[in-house]
Amino acid sequence: MPHRPLRLAWGGISAALVLLALPSAALPAPKRGSEPLAEVLARLIGEEAVSQGAYKKLAHLTDRIGPRLSGSPGAEAAVAWSAEELRNDGLARVRTERVMVPHWVRGEETAVLLSPSLRPLLVTALGMSIPTPAEGVTGEIVEVGSFEELQSRGDAVRGKIVLYYKPMERHPDGESYGSAATLRYRGAAEAAKQGAVAMLIRSLGTLSARLPHTGVQGYQEGVEKIPAAAVAAEDADLIHRLLESGEHVRVRLTLGCRLLPDAESANVVAELRGSSRPEEVLVIGGHLDSWDLGTGAIDDGAGVAITMETMRLLKKLGLRPRRTIRAVLFMNEENGNRGGKGYADAHQEELERHVAAIESDSGAGKPLGFSVTAGAGGLERVADLSRFLESLSATRVLPDGGGVDIGPMRRAGVPLLSLRQDMTHYFDWHHTAADTLDKVDPRELADNAVAMAFMAYALAEEESPLPRIPEDQRQEKE
Amino acid sequence: MPHRPLRLAWGGISAALVLLALPSAALPAPKRGSEPLAEVLARLIGEEAVSQGAYKKLAHLTDRIGPRLSGSPGAEAAVAWSAEELRNDGLARVRTERVMVPHWVRGEETAVLLSPSLRPLLVTALGMSIPTPAEGVTGEIVEVGSFEELQSRGDAVRGKIVLYYKPMERHPDGESYGSAATLRYRGAAEAAKQGAVAMLIRSLGTLSARLPHTGVQGYQEGVEKIPAAAVAAEDADLIHRLLESGEHVRVRLTLGCRLLPDAESANVVAELRGSSRPEEVLVIGGHLDSWDLGTGAIDDGAGVAITMETMRLLKKLGLRPRRTIRAVLFMNEENGNRGGKGYADAHQEELERHVAAIESDSGAGKPLGFSVTAGAGGLERVADLSRFLESLSATRVLPDGGGVDIGPMRRAGVPLLSLRQDMTHYFDWHHTAADTLDKVDPRELADNAVAMAFMAYALAEEESPLPRIPEDQRQEKE
Repeated sequence: MPHRPLRLAWGGISAALVLLALPSAALPAPKRGSEPLAEVLARLIGEEAVSQGAYKKLAHLTDRIGPRLSGSPGAEAAVAWSAEELRNDGLARVRTERVMVPHWVRGEETAVLLSPSLRPLLVTALGMSIPTPAEGVTGEIVEVGSFEELQSRGDAVRGKIVLYYKPMERHPDGESYGSAATLRYRGAAEAAKQGAVAMLIRSLGTLSARLPHTGVQGYQEGVEKIPAAAVAAEDADLIHRLLESGEHVRVRLTLGCRLLPDAESANVVAELRGSSRPEEVLVIGGHLDSWDLGTGAIDDGAGVAITMETMRLLKKLGLRPRRTIRAVLFMNEENGNRGGKGYADAHQEELERHVAAIESDSGAGKPLGFSVTAGAGGLERVADLSRFLESLSATRVLPDGGGVDIGPMRRAGVPLLSLRQDMTHYFDWHHTAADTLDKVDPRELADNAVAMAFMAYALAEEESPLPRIPEDQRQEKE
Repeated sequence: MPHRPLRLAWGGISAALVLLALPSAALPAPKRGSEPLAEVLARLIGEEAVSQGAYKKLAHLTDRIGPRLSGSPGAEAAVAWSAEELRNDGLARVRTERVMVPHWVRGEETAVLLSPSLRPLLVTALGMSIPTPAEGVTGEIVEVGSFEELQSRGDAVRGKIVLYYKPMERHPDGESYGSAATLRYRGAAEAAKQGAVAMLIRSLGTLSARLPHTGVQGYQEGVEKIPAAAVAAEDADLIHRLLESGEHVRVRLTLGCRLLPDAESANVVAELRGSSRPEEVLVIGGHLDSWDLGTGAIDDGAGVAITMETMRLLKKLGLRPRRTIRAVLFMNEENGNRGGKGYADAHQEELERHVAAIESDSGAGKPLGFSVTAGAGGLERVADLSRFLESLSATRVLPDGGGVDIGPMRRAGVPLLSLRQDMTHYFDWHHTAADTLDKVDPRELADNAVAMAFMAYALAEEESPLPRIPEDQRQEKE
């Protein structure tokens, strides 16, 4: 069906940049030249409020397809469904782009506190962990809060089970996750270097609901692989209190997880072709895979729904910007990033013409704004555009944009943005069996779809693209 | 060790009763004759703040002893420990009073959504449920919200699995629990009458954290017994949404629980002998047993700790009222009430000299006041005493006091009181694996111990006991 793009008279950037130096409360609403973008926003808000399209997509993905760990039937069902849905929504060049993914499967997982008293502990294997022997691994617990503390324990760790104990706190930007996630990712290898027989970690979460939080861990070349699991906050706290009171704590851990041969999977790609510069591409995306315990509603069904709905909204409303907007639903963000790496590799030649990439992978809390990694002045330009999102309160723009999936494009200098969600409660449910549809507020999800659609449209329509990441800052972050 | 009771000049009741007719904001603080009670309160508050005695007892009961379902090793360990602790605290006539209890044990419990797609469902057997065959029970789901709706479905229920679906809402008094608990208790029998092969219920809880909430159910004489389980809120909601969209939903339920022969157990009893009327008894209590999934911190470790700490506080501070205060830590509240019935039966002759009974079994939220079932004027007298608890905000006194454990004393007209806790979050964790120590705020627990100690002391010291429940209101509630 043909559509008539809305033409914009957009040129208020420079004036707005000057105004940015003023405190935000003093800023007048954008006036000259910006009515068309305001009109775009109004149409997006209205359409999404009435259609609830993002929520409907998320409901299907979580209720009907469910868990989507790489290599699982759910992941493949998600690939097939999302491609079909994008086609049904009228998008162009819908295709799957093949990637091979790790195929790790969970098995039995139990743990028992053996002394000072017998008690079941709730655990879940960390992604990519090796199994224990069938009879489990038994050992005394050595608790540490950091790698420094681990190293200071020296030989006392040998033959023991290391428990990393580092409670997290709620924060709108999820600030305490980073350092805790490093313990989770490298913890098994670091413990193994000192002779530990297994590794446990207090679940990386901000609510004690007896839910173990899984997540990926990575062994190191040349270091012995030991089993690794997360233990529910309550159980870790119990062990912590017992140790604090001077008890020796012994635990048996049994994991039946396995790593199978790599499986074939795919990124799902769809486009809204640019009206005048179709060869220039703005990527938006989230990740299709999820952990296996829940249905991946906040991680990252929301990002997938926001991305797909952005495409549907723009298509439905006939909002066709100068440049091509390309949706990429990435596979395997959680345990390998083969989708993100695969996309950047397969499109290496084209990355020079990628004008920006926006990822949504921080849940479905209300949108707060964006974060941006770009060349000088890029952040300010995004901030200027974000001022339109005042009615959604999504105006706060911070540095350090990006995301696991779009990270590999950094090497080509592609400006990287993240849609920022309020993460206050994100880590209550992140990577648990309770990451399900009910954790998503339909109106907050709708606001996210609108914020993403607006920013994607505005950036793809601008006369000049965002300044690229300078050469000396293109090394991909760990 | 001898102690010197604090003597009270207490006679301000009548004047205060008149004042009760005024709006509470207009009431002057009690003055004449009440200084001694205010002094009692101050000493209780100070001692508990410094000692944190209630929290220490609760920590031991939950961290060191753990789950305490009737008939389990944990229940017996709790009997032994609490008796020893009461002796160590210097209480009089500490003893265990034998009761035989049901001995139900949980086994494997799994459920699978078979269609429209394959998905694990998180379930837990309801207490006293029979097991399923080893291969499970498979059937299509029929969802109902009430027994009326169940009956209206007539023969459509035959061969099916009934799902009771009745979401609860948070409320400081836990108001929506009663009607939902009736569905849980009678649900299997009512469904069986219409030919159902199993019964599921949406977990009776106010937080969706993928936690199934167990609880007792009761079969009916002459009605076929069918397996009964609670399903996590998220899973019930999924089934609900699937049914709403017109799908046929099939589920397989497998339960390995069993009912063993009755086991020997006990109520634990201790006394603070009255100074001048020791034969008159005021009972305070909570229940020692808990469900098996968590460690029973809010249900009812808190009540046990509050009761034990009340005794310790009064003993330690030399606060010896006229009448005997008797702590009863009841066994088997959760699945049989053999402790409550056993106490009333064993003390039948003595119930005439029981001046009141106060139960704490609504968690450890901040104390709100008391509820009271007594003869005319009894509520007002408790309200008058509660006014001293202004600094704890525990002044609100409501009708309908009681509790499962003390309920059987109703037949003798014993005035029944409940210590009221703020239950806003009680049903978030009630009967789940997450009912653990961290759910209890130490200061709120301390306030509860103080409120209980104060009211127990005041009622046991008063010149005249509370008016008894009138003869025509002594029938025990279901």
